[in-house]
Amino acid sequence: MAWTQLVPDLLGVFFFAVSGSLLAQRRSFDIVGSLLLGTCVGLGGGILRDVILDVGVPRAFDSPVYLVPPVVAAVVVYFFAHVVQRFHDVLLTFDAAGMALFSVTGTLVALDAGMNHAAASILGVVTAVGGGVIRDVVANDVPQIFRARGLYAIPALIGAGLTALTSWLDWFGLVAAWAVAVLVFALRMVSLRYRWEAPPAAR
Amino acid sequence: MAWTQLVPDLLGVFFFAVSGSLLAQRRSFDIVGSLLLGTCVGLGGGILRDVILDVGVPRAFDSPVYLVPPVVAAVVVYFFAHVVQRFHDVLLTFDAAGMALFSVTGTLVALDAGMNHAAASILGVVTAVGGGVIRDVVANDVPQIFRARGLYAIPALIGAGLTALTSWLDWFGLVAAWAVAVLVFALRMVSLRYRWEAPPAAR
Amino acid sequence: MAWTQLVPDLLGVFFFAVSGSLLAQRRSFDIVGSLLLGTCVGLGGGILRDVILDVGVPRAFDSPVYLVPPVVAAVVVYFFAHVVQRFHDVLLTFDAAGMALFSVTGTLVALDAGMNHAAASILGVVTAVGGGVIRDVVANDVPQIFRARGLYAIPALIGAGLTALTSWLDWFGLVAAWAVAVLVFALRMVSLRYRWEAPPAAR
Repeated sequence: MAWTQLVPDLLGVFFFAVSGSLLAQRRSFDIVGSLLLGTCVGLGGGILRDVILDVGVPRAFDSPVYLVPPVVAAVVVYFFAHVVQRFHDVLLTFDAAGMALFSVTGTLVALDAGMNHAAASILGVVTAVGGGVIRDVVANDVPQIFRARGLYAIPALIGAGLTALTSWLDWFGLVAAWAVAVLVFALRMVSLRYRWEAPPAAR
Repeated sequence: MAWTQLVPDLLGVFFFAVSGSLLAQRRSFDIVGSLLLGTCVGLGGGILRDVILDVGVPRAFDSPVYLVPPVVAAVVVYFFAHVVQRFHDVLLTFDAAGMALFSVTGTLVALDAGMNHAAASILGVVTAVGGGVIRDVVANDVPQIFRARGLYAIPALIGAGLTALTSWLDWFGLVAAWAVAVLVFALRMVSLRYRWEAPPAAR
Repeated sequence: MAWTQLVPDLLGVFFFAVSGSLLAQRRSFDIVGSLLLGTCVGLGGGILRDVILDVGVPRAFDSPVYLVPPVVAAVVVYFFAHVVQRFHDVLLTFDAAGMALFSVTGTLVALDAGMNHAAASILGVVTAVGGGVIRDVVANDVPQIFRARGLYAIPALIGAGLTALTSWLDWFGLVAAWAVAVLVFALRMVSLRYRWEAPPAAR
């Protein structure tokens, strides 16, 4: 995989892994639980995507470099959790950053595997939200994606959709990738700050 | 896939998606959460089956038509949830209908993929109950299949077993398919109504 | 598969299935729920491994013999649960035995499928802990692996690591396999007895 794609993917793994390790700390799991939950969250979405794409062994198992970010995340949380916990919503911020990057890289991986643009967008969303759903299900919470504060799936859908669209128009490149990721992240954070809400499930 | 198999499969997706969107409404999720949970429930069992069968990209991702029933279900629940909630057990009824159809179509897909009749029955059960288990796990409930009211897994097993059996005897056809599905649905509903119960897990 | 590998694998399925059926009994599930939960726990880790390895239909579906241990486990728990519940930690003991055996056989299967030794160890851990995580998630508990009593993931990691290491050094054989499994089981049980604990997730 090109460096331009590997770097945001590994960054996404790191951000999600931090969110997992922070949740582990909040739930008083031990350091091994922190490493494991961070690994599940960081790699879960991509493994789900690769298993669905049926393209052989998921890259997280093929390329040992994917195991580095969760280890770094567990160490960072071990030493700095007491610092970052002072700020509100640190977990949600890291989660948003991971989600934003994965909505782009997940869609790209699916396009590279030959999926059509619609299916690739959906797999991008699966990659972007899958890790977080695994984190919350395993920690016995209702997944964040279903809890009301701010928009979650809509930014992920926009990120995956824009990636597929710019790629289809042949406008996709490094600038577009980062622009989309920053937009998705900003949308999530702004919607969280101003408590934007989608309509309820029933009138 | 033949129309005779596609129609009940899509109907099954729709019924399960309604059960997911109704649960989303009951839990006060927003409309996006309703769509996502309905999609998970409607497509989850089939994706699980296709991933286990290892037959390439699951058909839910290959054929965009599978995304239509969850959208319709979310819209229907949005407008009519307040109507249907007046009746008892609407969620359970839709769940039973989805389960009945999937116990037949799930087994057929596995047979088509070349599995032996025993393994195909088990995959039929996985398809039939998988979506509901995903729904309840994601919504942080103990899956319905383990909760005591009425029989759940036994009708699914009977449906998958009869499908495999009639197919083995070469009696399988459109009439048999619908007869089995109706039988499974009826068995589930009757067992719910009269609170039939399997023996406990221990003497 | 060779008998020397099949026997410990089936024993692992049996031990895990007993832990699932015991949990089902504790939660007042019925006999079908006991069989299903035992099956999920016994076969879940291996199915997860085979799906990730992308080596065709998981062996649990290919070889019907894998369905025997969960049936035996459900029957045993049905008749003897009231006996074994007198002893403390019966569920944890069976869980530990399953985990110990799977940390060895899971790693072997991954090595046989051509994975490198690092990835094979990680898949060994996935096999060893996956079934238990599925059991606890489905029964709506925080997985044991994250709960503080005794060490869990560390013994699994040691078992998988030693299996990969001895295999790499060409020292692996029947004696090594059982020695590693017994060591992992002993480590888990001793850590449980003396309440060894890993450091917390944050300083």
